[in-house]
Amino acid sequence: MPGNTFGEAFRVTTFGESHGPAVGCVIDGCPPGFPLDLAAVQAQLARRRPGQSKLVTPRDEDDQIEVLSGLDRETGRTLGTPIAMLVRNADQRSSAYREMQHIYRPSHADFGYDAKYGIRAWEGGGRSSARETVGRVAAGAVAEQLLAARFAGFSITAWVERVHQVDARAAIDALAVTRAAVDASPTRCPHPASAAAIEQAILTAKAAGDSLGGNVRLVIHAVPPGLGEPVFDKLDALLAQAMLSLPACKAVEFGSGFAAADSSGLQHNDQYVWLDGRMTTVSNRSGGIQGGISNGMAVDLRLAFKPTATVLKPQPTADDAGNNIDLQAKGRHDPCVLPRAVPIVEAMAALVLVDCWLRQRGQVGDPWPGLKGPLR
Amino acid sequence: MPGNTFGEAFRVTTFGESHGPAVGCVIDGCPPGFPLDLAAVQAQLARRRPGQSKLVTPRDEDDQIEVLSGLDRETGRTLGTPIAMLVRNADQRSSAYREMQHIYRPSHADFGYDAKYGIRAWEGGGRSSARETVGRVAAGAVAEQLLAARFAGFSITAWVERVHQVDARAAIDALAVTRAAVDASPTRCPHPASAAAIEQAILTAKAAGDSLGGNVRLVIHAVPPGLGEPVFDKLDALLAQAMLSLPACKAVEFGSGFAAADSSGLQHNDQYVWLDGRMTTVSNRSGGIQGGISNGMAVDLRLAFKPTATVLKPQPTADDAGNNIDLQAKGRHDPCVLPRAVPIVEAMAALVLVDCWLRQRGQVGDPWPGLKGPLR
Amino acid sequence: MPGNTFGEAFRVTTFGESHGPAVGCVIDGCPPGFPLDLAAVQAQLARRRPGQSKLVTPRDEDDQIEVLSGLDRETGRTLGTPIAMLVRNADQRSSAYREMQHIYRPSHADFGYDAKYGIRAWEGGGRSSARETVGRVAAGAVAEQLLAARFAGFSITAWVERVHQVDARAAIDALAVTRAAVDASPTRCPHPASAAAIEQAILTAKAAGDSLGGNVRLVIHAVPPGLGEPVFDKLDALLAQAMLSLPACKAVEFGSGFAAADSSGLQHNDQYVWLDGRMTTVSNRSGGIQGGISNGMAVDLRLAFKPTATVLKPQPTADDAGNNIDLQAKGRHDPCVLPRAVPIVEAMAALVLVDCWLRQRGQVGDPWPGLKGPLR
Amino acid sequence: MPGNTFGEAFRVTTFGESHGPAVGCVIDGCPPGFPLDLAAVQAQLARRRPGQSKLVTPRDEDDQIEVLSGLDRETGRTLGTPIAMLVRNADQRSSAYREMQHIYRPSHADFGYDAKYGIRAWEGGGRSSARETVGRVAAGAVAEQLLAARFAGFSITAWVERVHQVDARAAIDALAVTRAAVDASPTRCPHPASAAAIEQAILTAKAAGDSLGGNVRLVIHAVPPGLGEPVFDKLDALLAQAMLSLPACKAVEFGSGFAAADSSGLQHNDQYVWLDGRMTTVSNRSGGIQGGISNGMAVDLRLAFKPTATVLKPQPTADDAGNNIDLQAKGRHDPCVLPRAVPIVEAMAALVLVDCWLRQRGQVGDPWPGLKGPLR
Repeated sequence: MPGNTFGEAFRVTTFGESHGPAVGCVIDGCPPGFPLDLAAVQAQLARRRPGQSKLVTPRDEDDQIEVLSGLDRETGRTLGTPIAMLVRNADQRSSAYREMQHIYRPSHADFGYDAKYGIRAWEGGGRSSARETVGRVAAGAVAEQLLAARFAGFSITAWVERVHQVDARAAIDALAVTRAAVDASPTRCPHPASAAAIEQAILTAKAAGDSLGGNVRLVIHAVPPGLGEPVFDKLDALLAQAMLSLPACKAVEFGSGFAAADSSGLQHNDQYVWLDGRMTTVSNRSGGIQGGISNGMAVDLRLAFKPTATVLKPQPTADDAGNNIDLQAKGRHDPCVLPRAVPIVEAMAALVLVDCWLRQRGQVGDPWPGLKGPLR
Repeated sequence: MPGNTFGEAFRVTTFGESHGPAVGCVIDGCPPGFPLDLAAVQAQLARRRPGQSKLVTPRDEDDQIEVLSGLDRETGRTLGTPIAMLVRNADQRSSAYREMQHIYRPSHADFGYDAKYGIRAWEGGGRSSARETVGRVAAGAVAEQLLAARFAGFSITAWVERVHQVDARAAIDALAVTRAAVDASPTRCPHPASAAAIEQAILTAKAAGDSLGGNVRLVIHAVPPGLGEPVFDKLDALLAQAMLSLPACKAVEFGSGFAAADSSGLQHNDQYVWLDGRMTTVSNRSGGIQGGISNGMAVDLRLAFKPTATVLKPQPTADDAGNNIDLQAKGRHDPCVLPRAVPIVEAMAALVLVDCWLRQRGQVGDPWPGLKGPLR
Repeated sequence: MPGNTFGEAFRVTTFGESHGPAVGCVIDGCPPGFPLDLAAVQAQLARRRPGQSKLVTPRDEDDQIEVLSGLDRETGRTLGTPIAMLVRNADQRSSAYREMQHIYRPSHADFGYDAKYGIRAWEGGGRSSARETVGRVAAGAVAEQLLAARFAGFSITAWVERVHQVDARAAIDALAVTRAAVDASPTRCPHPASAAAIEQAILTAKAAGDSLGGNVRLVIHAVPPGLGEPVFDKLDALLAQAMLSLPACKAVEFGSGFAAADSSGLQHNDQYVWLDGRMTTVSNRSGGIQGGISNGMAVDLRLAFKPTATVLKPQPTADDAGNNIDLQAKGRHDPCVLPRAVPIVEAMAALVLVDCWLRQRGQVGDPWPGLKGPLR
Repeated sequence: MPGNTFGEAFRVTTFGESHGPAVGCVIDGCPPGFPLDLAAVQAQLARRRPGQSKLVTPRDEDDQIEVLSGLDRETGRTLGTPIAMLVRNADQRSSAYREMQHIYRPSHADFGYDAKYGIRAWEGGGRSSARETVGRVAAGAVAEQLLAARFAGFSITAWVERVHQVDARAAIDALAVTRAAVDASPTRCPHPASAAAIEQAILTAKAAGDSLGGNVRLVIHAVPPGLGEPVFDKLDALLAQAMLSLPACKAVEFGSGFAAADSSGLQHNDQYVWLDGRMTTVSNRSGGIQGGISNGMAVDLRLAFKPTATVLKPQPTADDAGNNIDLQAKGRHDPCVLPRAVPIVEAMAALVLVDCWLRQRGQVGDPWPGLKGPLR
């Protein structure tokens, strides 16, 4: 009934407030005997870490992960038992938030938490802070390793496609983007000219005490056909839930998405075709998912993130005592969440896919019918 | 682990194939003692029924619902036990689909089901047919009654905002649309001039054996603040899952959605303000949800539906034996799913909200802190 | 959150009141492509059917099952989609219960349902009636077929071991009992002399308007090692839940059970030994389960059922208006639930095991490590 | 699908291996705003702590708990967000277990874990160790506080009723036992003479390198009528699952339990009677639960625990390479698990009840119908 667990077969529960002692997660249901690469987990955490560049919040956290359970002491292999992972919060400056204890910051979760629970951890947004995503990224990095080991050619790549008015969409070959290209710029936009423009836009907004939003694109290669659980846990439905559960995410579209209205059925349909003994489609307006089930083509989606709600200019707002007031926000924040959202989006995608894979394996076995014979 | 149940507290399981004996649902967790209005349930089913107008599929189903359990025999009140509801499939013409038994229709779920299960009900799309949504609409109608009885002023209204190039968005005052206005046209677009244009566009596409997509808008009034379960079952995350689980839905955006990139944080933030002793926001770019929790403003979202994949023109595609072939589709279909999607979207919204309400009541009680005192 | 669904991977939801229109179930998560034997399902229903003998309730129900979904129309194979199954209630005589509408029958669920929901279906116990188990038996019969097809030698056999003072325990070789032997007597006790004594005891009690309780024994052969999900969903924990969820069941013990206190660790331990290349134990005081995981030996448990609460003699009790009254019960009932409990117990065992198998397959694959090499 | 989470509304996930870095739990769904008494949590952990007396394992752990999240920093009140709690493992001597790495100890979980996962943490039983119950006791102590605050007079009391041949059952007034009386002896048997005999029996067995089993009794007062979720999550079903999920637990009986066969329905039925405007029963053979729902009488159950499987005498057994060998066990262990089982049993009972309460509140509200008017 509560909402801090994600997944049915590969279950991840995250815990922790922004300025509490620690954040982390427990993974339940990890396949046993897997040689987990903890350095790769730490590397994904480094990609979401604050303080990486002048584009992101200066909060100083090294985000070293400690594994408390679930790994064999001698071999580091997964035991099949719960994997608890912990990151201590180091740089807590709750005094910066003291004056906001009774104030509802515009477009923040403060009011919602008070309305819901009658209490909230007001320091740094408490549970609603993006700091909570540390646990997601750690768990997602485990999931990604499992998927890459099972499905040849599997890769998850997210990138910043647009920030405010700088839209690199047309300049990027979405099927060819690599993580190396993404990480070449602190903006995480793989198109260098756009990246430069985005960097400038973010710095300008930052200097003005303002913030910017934009789009993240996600492409997943080598998703096998047959993943997704109709009728409610369709692959796109679960990905949509996963992404909309991220702070500041406001929209998701799969394949053609909102642009589907610009074409008719005859124009929009993805025709099937056998190619080298493998089923493919001529186009991929479906974004790799039809009827809620992967069809073997690249899973392709786009997300919208709003401008960071924290801005460093005075804003009118209200407090919890019935007063309308002016707020001058303090505290550290990202002038644009997009760069750090990239590894978080990848983590959520990995969590959805590993869960769908294990659910599929449970009901149908592995390999399943569609992975045999002419299909693959 | 399987995916045919939606909700945690108000749990709905749907069953049934398009051309099997019946479709229906079981609701588990319905509050007891509620005087269920079965006529209102039937009325929502009538709104999604095929054959309503020349804009939709001519399949002839009266969709009379039978309640098998969960209601008191004498008073019709809910017992708190599972409510099983059943609609018989009447107009089955599976022979029309015989030749498609081994063919994967473009942009349909046929291939995905085969890939996943190694078997599929090929008549009329089987489980992937929109006929499955009968159970959703019946359950959603129950949910809606419960919500309306609990929250004064509560209403859920969806409508067709756009079909293909006819976009009525700017012409409609989203906060003022009523179901009566929506139902005034078989297009379910509440703006008469746009409705006429949409009707013409659909009929033209139908005559050409083609199909069209578009947008549905959804506005929910009087959602109390505090609903939604961070961090994974946020209200927007669950609504996104619910909507993307619908056939042909390809995208969802909340509030400003993708347009959020066009503004900065200072421009985009919704400022809180006390108005007549009630917390409100000056703008509602958040779509009524912040940090995944309702804030008391109208919940506002937009969906994209692709053009119906079934078209009545020859299309190249593939079969399950390795052959690339030409398909001339038969069978009945909607040239545009949007009009009939409206009650289905409303049903899914009701299912999400009733579930969030009962989950909130479980953890926090009812009324919860944010519904007391100055907040409401 | 509600409680009418059992299982995580093979999920069964039952619905229906004793005197409502129908009882039944929906199975979600059934492996696809399985050639379901519906006659075998019907046969298990016949074993729990009322009116089989003079030892059980004379309610006249033929309990013909109708499958509404989830099977391929032409081959009868499972589709992997929800299997909805329905049995109409035929012999309803609610007038017999009218006077009990406001009376709480001793040791019945009447008061509990009123206390919980504030409303109850008072005809024949409503949802608390053993009639609800029709859905369990139907689903369990599906589960049993799946298990028998997967695990060579698999069998589930329950029997009546004791009724009141007639205890056949010492006379029965528990590892050798067959269903044929069980069904040789309407008592479902496989020891003929005890069966005769039990029959006499039940008839005597019936004639006196009284009722009797006793023990059911359950032995499952060829359960593979490795099933059960520590730490909360251990195999014995799930079996205990399953059995205690049955009407009138008051106790369960595994292996030595309560008698374990009569021995010490040195006496009680089951020593492992390799026998013909297969791991076995010298004794089986553990009842085939250690640490909550099956060890490959026979799963062995014993259940206690209380005497039927319905008796046909006047009893003092209370009504819902504050009065202490005398009740003369009417309605049909079983003077002893044990004979009909046998197929129900088998069904619950099958549901637990198929669920554990699919959960194991999801996390670890199939065959899992312990089914390879020297272990099996 | 995995099994390390208990509860639907008040969800507890435990993690940790006996000789890994830490054990602990995450509670999700705790009601917000509750002034948690951490000292009381620590006190229950002290009651299960090893090294309390010469009757239990000498492993030296102080079991100080650290709360990582979910509490307000300034007030200590619950936030409604996940409460993660951690206890470091201090006294690890895995070298003592090295030689058992490839040996399956009789009646231990070693073989089952290997069969299931193909890998196991062999030090001290890994995940199957009773050390895992640290997380249960911590979470249960939170649950108990919530229940006591909500239901006047609520108490959970477990005690050792029998060890081996010393059976104190007849000497103890089960409805009058207090925790103070239970803790008066390190045996946790509240009858002094029996306690002395039990202490002697355990010490004798310990000296002989042997171990003993016995019974724990549990009585819960002031459980309100209406808790339990038919038909699968009945109160007794969930309690049975909870208790059988404990290491070494082999049986459970409610109320009359196995003894029910000794009486007939007329003798066994609990007659309802209004007493001082409150519904009660004349007897309580039902153990406070009818039809799976609490009826307001004391919940009363009895558990059997087997003799500790670890004994310090040579035993024949097998290894994982096909050899039958002789094992001389080392390592620390409890010669009798009963005394330390007492707080663990109480914890599981609290977890079941708080979950049932919140589930009831979700579906029906709080107070629910049966708590109003003449019923209470």
